[in-house]
Amino acid sequence: MSASAWRLSQDDTAAEPPRHGSSTRRMLVVAATVVLTLLGAGGLAVAGSGVFSAERPEGCTKPDRSIQLYAVELPKDGTQIRLGYGLTPQTASYPGPTMEMMEGECLAITLHNQVPVATLEQLRTDPAHPLGVSLHVHGVKYTQLSDGTVQSGSFVPPGQSRTYTWFAQQRNNRTGSPGTAGYWWYHDHVVGGPHGTQGLGAGLFGGLVVRRPGDPKPDRTYTVVFGDRQSINLRRGAATDTCDAQNPQPGPTCLVARKGEKVEFIVVGIGNDMHTFHLHGHSWADTRTGVVGNGQPFADSVPIIDNKPLGPGDSFGFQVAAGDSVGPGHWMLHCHMQFHSDGGMSTMLHVLDESGAMPPGHDQHSHPATAAAGTGAGGAGEHQHN
Amino acid sequence: MSASAWRLSQDDTAAEPPRHGSSTRRMLVVAATVVLTLLGAGGLAVAGSGVFSAERPEGCTKPDRSIQLYAVELPKDGTQIRLGYGLTPQTASYPGPTMEMMEGECLAITLHNQVPVATLEQLRTDPAHPLGVSLHVHGVKYTQLSDGTVQSGSFVPPGQSRTYTWFAQQRNNRTGSPGTAGYWWYHDHVVGGPHGTQGLGAGLFGGLVVRRPGDPKPDRTYTVVFGDRQSINLRRGAATDTCDAQNPQPGPTCLVARKGEKVEFIVVGIGNDMHTFHLHGHSWADTRTGVVGNGQPFADSVPIIDNKPLGPGDSFGFQVAAGDSVGPGHWMLHCHMQFHSDGGMSTMLHVLDESGAMPPGHDQHSHPATAAAGTGAGGAGEHQHN
Amino acid sequence: MSASAWRLSQDDTAAEPPRHGSSTRRMLVVAATVVLTLLGAGGLAVAGSGVFSAERPEGCTKPDRSIQLYAVELPKDGTQIRLGYGLTPQTASYPGPTMEMMEGECLAITLHNQVPVATLEQLRTDPAHPLGVSLHVHGVKYTQLSDGTVQSGSFVPPGQSRTYTWFAQQRNNRTGSPGTAGYWWYHDHVVGGPHGTQGLGAGLFGGLVVRRPGDPKPDRTYTVVFGDRQSINLRRGAATDTCDAQNPQPGPTCLVARKGEKVEFIVVGIGNDMHTFHLHGHSWADTRTGVVGNGQPFADSVPIIDNKPLGPGDSFGFQVAAGDSVGPGHWMLHCHMQFHSDGGMSTMLHVLDESGAMPPGHDQHSHPATAAAGTGAGGAGEHQHN
Repeated sequence: MSASAWRLSQDDTAAEPPRHGSSTRRMLVVAATVVLTLLGAGGLAVAGSGVFSAERPEGCTKPDRSIQLYAVELPKDGTQIRLGYGLTPQTASYPGPTMEMMEGECLAITLHNQVPVATLEQLRTDPAHPLGVSLHVHGVKYTQLSDGTVQSGSFVPPGQSRTYTWFAQQRNNRTGSPGTAGYWWYHDHVVGGPHGTQGLGAGLFGGLVVRRPGDPKPDRTYTVVFGDRQSINLRRGAATDTCDAQNPQPGPTCLVARKGEKVEFIVVGIGNDMHTFHLHGHSWADTRTGVVGNGQPFADSVPIIDNKPLGPGDSFGFQVAAGDSVGPGHWMLHCHMQFHSDGGMSTMLHVLDESGAMPPGHDQHSHPATAAAGTGAGGAGEHQHN
Repeated sequence: MSASAWRLSQDDTAAEPPRHGSSTRRMLVVAATVVLTLLGAGGLAVAGSGVFSAERPEGCTKPDRSIQLYAVELPKDGTQIRLGYGLTPQTASYPGPTMEMMEGECLAITLHNQVPVATLEQLRTDPAHPLGVSLHVHGVKYTQLSDGTVQSGSFVPPGQSRTYTWFAQQRNNRTGSPGTAGYWWYHDHVVGGPHGTQGLGAGLFGGLVVRRPGDPKPDRTYTVVFGDRQSINLRRGAATDTCDAQNPQPGPTCLVARKGEKVEFIVVGIGNDMHTFHLHGHSWADTRTGVVGNGQPFADSVPIIDNKPLGPGDSFGFQVAAGDSVGPGHWMLHCHMQFHSDGGMSTMLHVLDESGAMPPGHDQHSHPATAAAGTGAGGAGEHQHN
Repeated sequence: MSASAWRLSQDDTAAEPPRHGSSTRRMLVVAATVVLTLLGAGGLAVAGSGVFSAERPEGCTKPDRSIQLYAVELPKDGTQIRLGYGLTPQTASYPGPTMEMMEGECLAITLHNQVPVATLEQLRTDPAHPLGVSLHVHGVKYTQLSDGTVQSGSFVPPGQSRTYTWFAQQRNNRTGSPGTAGYWWYHDHVVGGPHGTQGLGAGLFGGLVVRRPGDPKPDRTYTVVFGDRQSINLRRGAATDTCDAQNPQPGPTCLVARKGEKVEFIVVGIGNDMHTFHLHGHSWADTRTGVVGNGQPFADSVPIIDNKPLGPGDSFGFQVAAGDSVGPGHWMLHCHMQFHSDGGMSTMLHVLDESGAMPPGHDQHSHPATAAAGTGAGGAGEHQHN
């Protein structure tokens, strides 16, 4: 067994020649582990390998809440295999359900792998790679048992389930923990290969927000994911904006809000490429929450932005008052890389008036050629030709 | 007319079946609009669909200032069509004129489209796409009528003009507005396609800075735009540094300052690619202004940088004291992506001494082979061979 | 001599027609320079071209410390030429030695170019480009004589040496200097071409940290460099994680720490591509040090991150308490761009327990197929099938 060979020598600044046959040292380490384990079992908060429980992160004595999560196959997108996470198998989607935690909370998530074996086999290129799905999360704390990786063995073979434990650690000046409040995301890390590239590409990801007491509460939250080859919930081409024009309802591909509502965006990057997230008519502060609070002495120094680079693995979020100062209308939200937006990586935040209606003159479906002639937008929205 | 179909139901968390024939509801909305408009005309600050005027952002009762802006065709760059914005048709350039606003100010910009129809036709690939130019701005507030997009109808057909209204909104803790002070930019959003990719690529863009009372004032401001295929005002190859060696004058492609002058950079990314902006010998704070003021309690925590990623749509800015500590000389400014800088995306900030001269020994035009022999730089700048 | 032609006219806001034959003006400039030089020689702190010494940055009257640095050729990596910096020729490596400075310190580094002429010739494509190596540094202050560029003549021909002076300038509210404390790097700027692309690609780079009094001190520091085509110290493929499994020792390609140790990362991007740096199980504050101190009023607003975009020329750093809350184990560190991590741009931070051993059940070398069967991780790390 090679595990106990992982031992840091006391004199570790200088390179040492490899030691062979250090069985005595290894035996001692094993013994020490046992002793510390016994002490730990007695309830002492002694730091040591035996005291640390691999089951749960420190600070989480037991989960405050438990949820079930299902990984399932969804209908194909053309020939592209689609997978999704859902709180029930029937409601699985991509992005998966947006998770919300408070700092200090410990969450147990039992992931059930219902993806067919044949599908997982189809998604892997290396037959030596194990079949399974997993849950890897950014930002919050978890032990190796909840890492969601192959090398830690923390994944779920087909038909099985596994409980992952996430702890939203608070800020702690003694240990140097900055806390975990922020905009994060979760995703598969094993489908197809050791980094879950095929699982991610198929749809196994979702947003997570961890709040701190006193954080502003949004009226609506939208999770927007920018990826390559597909934009996932910002689909390319004709399906970009899937709102029903006769009765638009807020949903993953239909971003709607009334003027003045606090709309929260959770923005996530996946895949291989960089993107830049741009929202028309709205801007936010480049802070943890996207908001600058009252009387903060540094408020004058915070960059205000409306366009932000976003690479794979990045996540950020912010809140805006929908239509603040700028009013109702169809406000574009797109990647500002021109070949991405031209390729369809573009949608709208539809800001209705306070009564919940779109004022006349904001017809997003006007034909461009008509608009060009100055007749597409009437009423209050008419052209101002001088 | 489909506009009023955009209505958010009260119970909007659950999907509802589409409603047809809701003419009664629509009529009521229209009626309410009229009433509220009348109230609004009486000066009451009542929130409501009818109070909000699509003409101007809230906070701007009337423009504080008006300017004329012309979009014209410039001489071709080889075979590449070039367009520019100018305060007069004769002074149009790329980047266009750098705009400056103070928070609280409302600016009316009348854009005159003087680009020939034939040129606009040449720049579009889809014959259904309308012909026109527009003005889309980042950071400041504008209504849909000043969005500069096709779908909002807010663009300018050939030979016509249109007034865009920009409002530099102040910080407002009640609405959550973070204010609009910052480094921004403006650009076309319609030439060639719905994202103005051809207009941007041809040169229709410029810098904008919004200041807050008390912000440091620069002695000089340079707008630097990084793009792909062409670097625009950081042109590739032989034309990279276009200063007249006999009489260098500050200009878009000739960055010059005296030692100690406060030089402000407005840095903008356009096109498809990421870049990293690097300036030799100078660094700045990653804050809104690039400066850390006196006695700020967070000053110790602000990242100091001299290299910053920059994607399409991004803009940032900063001020440096030219040559502070490092002295006069030809300080390189380049994209740190090696294939970009090697391809010519590189220029100089020429820092003269306080008297306005370049000290001897700083001959940027010394032949590399000569410099290699240690004879290219004489006087104070001679080699230190030990 | 063309140097004094670099003169900024007083009326520089308006474009002027080129002036020819301005010999009178140029003569005046030269005269003024002489006068100021005489004044400067008298010891007055007068700003002027003659007062500023090109030898050293202002604030550094003499170096506080001197070191020798050697640029040498290393064994080839397959067919790829490798160069390295070292404090001795024998210890040269890539990355080169991590440098550490305190704000206020002035460091003299004498670079000895021991790279064979034939190698430098092989690395250049343009025969007109001079042969040499150099030292260009980010963040700290240096004059043109220490810029490390061809056009300033500040490089080292084969077999020669040259002293570069770096000054870790303190914050100065009068001049607007934000100080130079931060995570930086140094690199060649001349091998192969004017931007040192071949020198960088071969290995001529290293990390630099400048501390401010009171900054947290790490127990260990690792410099991690992300590049393209090769990942340098995060090598691709089989050599990714070069820890000796029987006796792992901390080193450039073997990141090891005991639980609770403060581990500092200096992260640098080189080459042509963007990357995103992700560390499993750990997060940090997006501040200058990566740490949020006690009682800072803005602490609530600082973004906490575990994934950060990184472009060529960028550098950042942070400290984490190894295994804080999450415990010992093999914590992945990788580029989150999927094709990069799949290509091998991935390694581990091996967190041992406080006694310096890896607890049982964390066998990173378990065969994936075995792990899939649920038998690869035993003991405390066993699967939790529910």
